[in-house]
Amino acid sequence: MAPTEKNNSNKASAVKPPCPMQSLAEERLNPAFPVGEMTDFINGGRDITELKRTMFLEMERDPNWKIDDYPNLSLSEIRERTMKKVSGVADRLLTESRSKFMMRMSMMSIVDPGFWTRFGVHFGLFLGALTGQATPSQFNYWVQKGALSLRGMVGCFGMTELGHGSNVAGLETTATFDESHDQFVINTPTLTATKWWIGGAAQTATHCSVYARLIIKGVDYGVKVFIVQLRDPKTFNLMQGVNIGDIGKKMGRDQIDNGWIQFTNVRIPRSYMLMKHTKVSSTGKVTEPPMAQLAYGALIMGRVSMVSDSANVSRRALTIAIRYAAVRRQFTSGPAGSLETKLLDYTTHQHRLLPLLAQSFAIGFAARKLNQQYELLMTGLEGSKPGSDIKLILEDLKETHATSAGLKAFCTWDCLNIIDQCRQSLGGHGYSAYTGLSTSYQDFAVHCTWEGDNTILMLQCGRFLVTSAEKFKKNLPTPANLSYLGKAGSGEKFNSCTSTNPDEICSIETLKEAWACVAAYSILKAHKLYKESVSTGSTMDQAYEATSAARLHAAKMHITAYLFHCLSDAIYTNECTPGIVEPLKSLALLYGTSSIIKNSGEFLQCKYFDSKQINTLNKKLDELCSTVRKYAVLLVDSFAYPDYVINSPLGKYDGNVYETYFNLVNRLNPNKPVPYFETLIKPMLNRSLETDEGPELEIDTE
Amino acid sequence: MAPTEKNNSNKASAVKPPCPMQSLAEERLNPAFPVGEMTDFINGGRDITELKRTMFLEMERDPNWKIDDYPNLSLSEIRERTMKKVSGVADRLLTESRSKFMMRMSMMSIVDPGFWTRFGVHFGLFLGALTGQATPSQFNYWVQKGALSLRGMVGCFGMTELGHGSNVAGLETTATFDESHDQFVINTPTLTATKWWIGGAAQTATHCSVYARLIIKGVDYGVKVFIVQLRDPKTFNLMQGVNIGDIGKKMGRDQIDNGWIQFTNVRIPRSYMLMKHTKVSSTGKVTEPPMAQLAYGALIMGRVSMVSDSANVSRRALTIAIRYAAVRRQFTSGPAGSLETKLLDYTTHQHRLLPLLAQSFAIGFAARKLNQQYELLMTGLEGSKPGSDIKLILEDLKETHATSAGLKAFCTWDCLNIIDQCRQSLGGHGYSAYTGLSTSYQDFAVHCTWEGDNTILMLQCGRFLVTSAEKFKKNLPTPANLSYLGKAGSGEKFNSCTSTNPDEICSIETLKEAWACVAAYSILKAHKLYKESVSTGSTMDQAYEATSAARLHAAKMHITAYLFHCLSDAIYTNECTPGIVEPLKSLALLYGTSSIIKNSGEFLQCKYFDSKQINTLNKKLDELCSTVRKYAVLLVDSFAYPDYVINSPLGKYDGNVYETYFNLVNRLNPNKPVPYFETLIKPMLNRSLETDEGPELEIDTE
Repeated sequence: MAPTEKNNSNKASAVKPPCPMQSLAEERLNPAFPVGEMTDFINGGRDITELKRTMFLEMERDPNWKIDDYPNLSLSEIRERTMKKVSGVADRLLTESRSKFMMRMSMMSIVDPGFWTRFGVHFGLFLGALTGQATPSQFNYWVQKGALSLRGMVGCFGMTELGHGSNVAGLETTATFDESHDQFVINTPTLTATKWWIGGAAQTATHCSVYARLIIKGVDYGVKVFIVQLRDPKTFNLMQGVNIGDIGKKMGRDQIDNGWIQFTNVRIPRSYMLMKHTKVSSTGKVTEPPMAQLAYGALIMGRVSMVSDSANVSRRALTIAIRYAAVRRQFTSGPAGSLETKLLDYTTHQHRLLPLLAQSFAIGFAARKLNQQYELLMTGLEGSKPGSDIKLILEDLKETHATSAGLKAFCTWDCLNIIDQCRQSLGGHGYSAYTGLSTSYQDFAVHCTWEGDNTILMLQCGRFLVTSAEKFKKNLPTPANLSYLGKAGSGEKFNSCTSTNPDEICSIETLKEAWACVAAYSILKAHKLYKESVSTGSTMDQAYEATSAARLHAAKMHITAYLFHCLSDAIYTNECTPGIVEPLKSLALLYGTSSIIKNSGEFLQCKYFDSKQINTLNKKLDELCSTVRKYAVLLVDSFAYPDYVINSPLGKYDGNVYETYFNLVNRLNPNKPVPYFETLIKPMLNRSLETDEGPELEIDTE
Repeated sequence: MAPTEKNNSNKASAVKPPCPMQSLAEERLNPAFPVGEMTDFINGGRDITELKRTMFLEMERDPNWKIDDYPNLSLSEIRERTMKKVSGVADRLLTESRSKFMMRMSMMSIVDPGFWTRFGVHFGLFLGALTGQATPSQFNYWVQKGALSLRGMVGCFGMTELGHGSNVAGLETTATFDESHDQFVINTPTLTATKWWIGGAAQTATHCSVYARLIIKGVDYGVKVFIVQLRDPKTFNLMQGVNIGDIGKKMGRDQIDNGWIQFTNVRIPRSYMLMKHTKVSSTGKVTEPPMAQLAYGALIMGRVSMVSDSANVSRRALTIAIRYAAVRRQFTSGPAGSLETKLLDYTTHQHRLLPLLAQSFAIGFAARKLNQQYELLMTGLEGSKPGSDIKLILEDLKETHATSAGLKAFCTWDCLNIIDQCRQSLGGHGYSAYTGLSTSYQDFAVHCTWEGDNTILMLQCGRFLVTSAEKFKKNLPTPANLSYLGKAGSGEKFNSCTSTNPDEICSIETLKEAWACVAAYSILKAHKLYKESVSTGSTMDQAYEATSAARLHAAKMHITAYLFHCLSDAIYTNECTPGIVEPLKSLALLYGTSSIIKNSGEFLQCKYFDSKQINTLNKKLDELCSTVRKYAVLLVDSFAYPDYVINSPLGKYDGNVYETYFNLVNRLNPNKPVPYFETLIKPMLNRSLETDEGPELEIDTE
């Protein structure tokens, strides 16, 4: 009837219904690698695998953690259920080790991203502000008040304003010092200064860490942090001078109650300004910190966790898409009445999903590496004393800041793309709210714009790369992650691949060198443009602005190279068992090859590959896809997400997708009479088509 | 405090609040081109501009067409309001000319995409099935029953099944002929045969055009169309043997009540099978049509309208993003206290939005061309008699089918990308449900998977291109849209650009030739692969499968070339007034250049451009962005969408974005006490941290 891709004959005898469970089971017969070993390797050890399994089970058994009916809940039902989860978790803040609690949060964020945000606003942002900005005695004071136990107080984080986001230095809210009372007066001077998007402000928080301009005797000292009480914890009445509103519906994450706050000359004690760095004395004397950049450290944590989140969320999306692709059948070129072909057996479908699977592995290993780098940095920062070693730590900080900025931007964009590609790969069913990916997209999308808009973060990363190139050119030491600057070639001449052997061209070694060269090429190109701009009289700011496209591009190349290295290096780690080397190697080759083809222009321009070699890689891509196709279901099995976490009938482990889907839809949407049949449909169906012609006029009958 | 892109000094004196209305007004001072002329050109004439304006105003004044509170409505409220709109529009089906009604639908689809779908299921799909598949007497019969007037009956379209989408030939539902009663028996044999996603089935439709396998005396004649009554229009009770359920929440378009249908041996008269093409006599004799492909025509309409919709929806998204970018200020490199810089003045922001603006113009002109081609084709089809001229029409049909398939896929993907890029360009505010783009994304996303999954449509388009290349190689006539196959070069040697002059390299003529060459190169490459595969013994199906990546790529190149040609040719049409040539030319250059850079690998591989020329184009891109930046606000003004249609405070014409946004959010979310404070929050804040240690044990006191 309709034009079909394969122009099947309509004369086939009665079609064979699909057999979903069998389709999935056959993928697991004689597994090509030990799935459990891969799970442990991904997780970082058997004990972590077990811990995650237990945590998932605890959630599944907790009635507050029911999640499959979310699409049918109203905004207020969602918020109320989330509050139950918050109070259910609160005690763990005191009883569980930090690392275990962090892992629990991370697992919870896969199951319910909006809960994670609601809890994270207090735990990550408010507590993070205290940790990073409060003096020890201030920190103790707020802990006594209940900041750590969620008892007596709940915090929110008051940075963004209606008219000001990424440029924190441009915030308008003021904190004016009143020396006579030893107080600050917090004020919202204009509409655009209204604190906006403040998570937890609408219905949860009693206190807020307010970012405001420190004004003393008419002098503006820039933006600092102040703790302001918003509500009385006994009545939840707003404090004098505090005005709060509800920001309402969002694209996703309705679990968190974002609100707006306006302050009208709200007075707080001087000691409510967090003074770990800048200090204000009772006479209004300001002491600036020796190393203002140290305050940056706290902001990195959110980014690091978003890279992990990208790995976790993309794994869930790929599990759904790949299992469904092994179950869903469509078209056949076989004889009439034969089974249709699995989606996963089509080249196009492999090209759509399998490079994304490889990318997800790369993101996972990069997240782990970044986490380690971050932990090291924090240990260094906490143990640091003013002196010579602080300089090294500061270099580390800058590097970690730039890498985390670039990775946060790149990985959240990638993950959002993976979710949407996976959703589209489900065909029409991806549009249902119950198949798990439309809601995932809506929840995840915010990662690309919050805690540093991705584009701005990429530009920051690019700026760091240009600065590093400048050091490299001057033979100064460059960060370890940029060691390839010196290995990619000498001066303007870059290495190139001279092989004509397909297996050599498409080897881990060549792909590694290829990515190193193209990243070095892009960074040095951006640096050159920058220098040219400076040499023609531009200021530094103008020169950076003039090279923003090149910087952005350099960051993209650098981060892709970084991801590829994380993936291809994984097989050389001690924890990698022999049984899982082959699939990991195939994934690395697939990621390297597909990302080179996607950026082939750059490789041709830097002349690492020529046109023929790109054609060779194109052919290899088909081969690699069919290799990874054999592992595909096992690889997503190795992510080890139980059905509860997958929360999609189409990603069910046993492949019983249609029955599960049908039952879920019917359970959540029981049959009821159409409520507006009598009032709307019936009158329309029975309406008269005659129009009133009015009274007969005498003039017409004369 | 936070690392900022520009590292502003924190020591700035009190910041200057933004002045949004003035920021936008200054963009319209001394307009660089006559905006009204551009509007008329885009619309296709002053009269159409006026008509659209009137239609928008009629909607704005109709209380049923209130739209700004949509994000806060429940599923059932949305559906009920939509039903009011449906009955409000019904009479226009009889009183308005078809062309005017179609335009009204198109405008309504911008304002309320879900309404358009709910109405379109009856008007486009059900009526479309009757028009395309019913004999004249059958058509009259159903019109008498009320199919045209929505009186007595409402139709839905029963094609997709739970287990079967794109491959219509694989549907499982059966229509078995019972000769003794001169009836068909409609049956759902398995769970996967359940009709699924059927718009209007859950709460609206009385009848359904059911796609089912025609079975006569044990022989399966493939899928045909049958009209089956679902409900009694007087009571809305389900007919005997019909079982219907509600599919519930979706990613978007909740205005339409998608449902599932199962038939258990439902009997219908033989004459309820639509017999314009295949006919079944009372003795069960089947007469097949001479030209089965003619049935394809009806399916093209949906695709054509989705290309128009992509133009319309992307215009709205860009209006919001570009007006906001001219209002929103962020960072400054000026002295302390100076106004921050408009987002639109940043190179990166221009690179993000302006190529998309150019792309949206290209989609608009392509939509118009495709519409004209479709109207011509339909005129030809309707006037056609069996004989020699039908062959030409069939060629046209194939070409229109392939072009509409490729354009539908490409333009809906592009539009979805434009919506998301625009949403992200709003920063955090893009995540609100009230700023217009998150909901737009959710509504639009379905276009990529319904009425032909985009990937499958691209493959179909690619298959047509390979077939055309085969004709070209054999010196047979090729379709007009592929004339470039003969102009791109001779044999394996393609033309290349030899200029070193930037203005020559970046001229309309060169870019046109560049796109023609690269499209021809990709098509002939896919054709070559196909021939190689066939020559090694593959079947046609296997050869097409083996070249699917190349086909997909060829389709992408062909459609981009097509879009570029539509845009660059626009200035040569009679309706293009001198005043608007410059901005249109800049848009064409921007689209051509940016799309070449995005696909630079392909241009380097086919050697049309060399590495230096690509660098030249890269530099030109910055220039073109800053040229188009000057026109940007005027260009989106020329789309002439009133604030009601824009339905986003951030895209408000007068630039008063913050006040409008603040007021809207507060009107829709009035302050209420937190409903779960007493039950959830207070107990958490006041909980005891002591744990019950149980009774003292004797053993401990012994």
